[in-house]
Amino acid sequence: MGTTTEKLSAATGRDARLLARRGHAGHTAGLAPGFVQGNLVVLPEREASAFLRFCQRNPKPCPLLAVSEPGDPRLPALGEDLDLRTDLPRYRVWREGVLVEEPTDIRAHWRPDLVAFVLGCSFSFEEALLEAGVPLRHLELGCNVPMYRTTIACAPAGPFRGPMVVSMRPLRAADAIRAIQITARFPAVHGAPVHLGDPRLVGIADLARPDYGDPVPVHEDELPVFWACGVTPQAVLVEARLPFAITHAPGSMLVTDLRNARLALS
Amino acid sequence: MGTTTEKLSAATGRDARLLARRGHAGHTAGLAPGFVQGNLVVLPEREASAFLRFCQRNPKPCPLLAVSEPGDPRLPALGEDLDLRTDLPRYRVWREGVLVEEPTDIRAHWRPDLVAFVLGCSFSFEEALLEAGVPLRHLELGCNVPMYRTTIACAPAGPFRGPMVVSMRPLRAADAIRAIQITARFPAVHGAPVHLGDPRLVGIADLARPDYGDPVPVHEDELPVFWACGVTPQAVLVEARLPFAITHAPGSMLVTDLRNARLALS
Repeated sequence: MGTTTEKLSAATGRDARLLARRGHAGHTAGLAPGFVQGNLVVLPEREASAFLRFCQRNPKPCPLLAVSEPGDPRLPALGEDLDLRTDLPRYRVWREGVLVEEPTDIRAHWRPDLVAFVLGCSFSFEEALLEAGVPLRHLELGCNVPMYRTTIACAPAGPFRGPMVVSMRPLRAADAIRAIQITARFPAVHGAPVHLGDPRLVGIADLARPDYGDPVPVHEDELPVFWACGVTPQAVLVEARLPFAITHAPGSMLVTDLRNARLALS
Repeated sequence: MGTTTEKLSAATGRDARLLARRGHAGHTAGLAPGFVQGNLVVLPEREASAFLRFCQRNPKPCPLLAVSEPGDPRLPALGEDLDLRTDLPRYRVWREGVLVEEPTDIRAHWRPDLVAFVLGCSFSFEEALLEAGVPLRHLELGCNVPMYRTTIACAPAGPFRGPMVVSMRPLRAADAIRAIQITARFPAVHGAPVHLGDPRLVGIADLARPDYGDPVPVHEDELPVFWACGVTPQAVLVEARLPFAITHAPGSMLVTDLRNARLALS
């Protein structure tokens, strides 16, 4: 989108939010290691309850970390001083399903009927995979994880319906087994994979042509492993063509005070 | 081996042991549902410590449930009145790596230097898989699970060395993912799979020709999933050509008072 991307650094979730609050507009990947980052969806109360039902029915693509009170831009459960209107580096404003603006601050758009949803993202489980020595090709290659629309239908709710979007990580069998065990302990950030092996069984015709992100090679001795992806609710949201919605801009997440390790089941 | 196989039934582990103690020589599969069944290995104390090290180094194929005191045929941890000399339906006696006898009672062979090892078996995790609705083809077909020698080397200890033997269950991807999560909770009975997908990567040339057990079909939309198998220590034992050893006869396991559900990690 031609926006400036600065190189930032932050030790804690609060540090990262303060950087954003002061107007820094960079990506959050790599900021505040160990702290949970989340996808943001902001909707008028009129559509919020249907979206909440959609998340409840589709917990793998839409793992809800927190929901705000209507009109309240704070979410103390995720950070004491957190202000959803200023604490993300960049936002997207949608009208009738069309992207109309990418501001670094949404105070001017805030309304008393807005409800915010924060959804877990795969950064948290990727950190656990790396700590366990499971290699992640897209990080090695310095590109985005490849993502695909599948033929797996989400359970609909109100105006929200559509296919599940998945992210793919190629892994050798022993790493795939280990990765399933590890990510199963993180239901709040997509949980265990939804598929592995033959991509055609979930309607993916060509791994080399992802619908979002960048392609990565799958070696002869590897299996493609597919996780439900946070792009699912964003795609569903666009399809629903709501009169008004706000989301985070891609890569500009909400950095919280929660620790990734706290999301793991014991 | 031409031995009689009677149709038995038993509600508890103790019932199953009493049947065996009275001379019934049938298989134990299906007896005492919910109770842990184990593989038996009995060795002179001279080789026992190396075998214990072998089990410690290879916990997936050799998950140790209990080890007896030298000379003591009881194992109160697995059953209060348990007598290892009489409570299995049938035994195998080995001399210099050669099967010499298949008695229903080993009182005549018992010695003050013998140490008994009881190893977990896949019956326990298969029960958990069935309860979770994961279909098991070999049970549907009423045959033995197919087992294969692999190119995965066990960590050696003393005279004990050799390849890991694995059992194979064909599963659709979603069931394979669920099965990994479920069996990972049962480290005392082989735990999570050691491989899935391409069998050639672990040295299996042809799934239709198992080294032990019976072949089962793998459908187009399924992955072969491989678990470490309790046949591993038996194959290693035969290869070690020990002067003297006793094992259970195939299918004639020790039925214990432990509940399968108690083996699961919370």
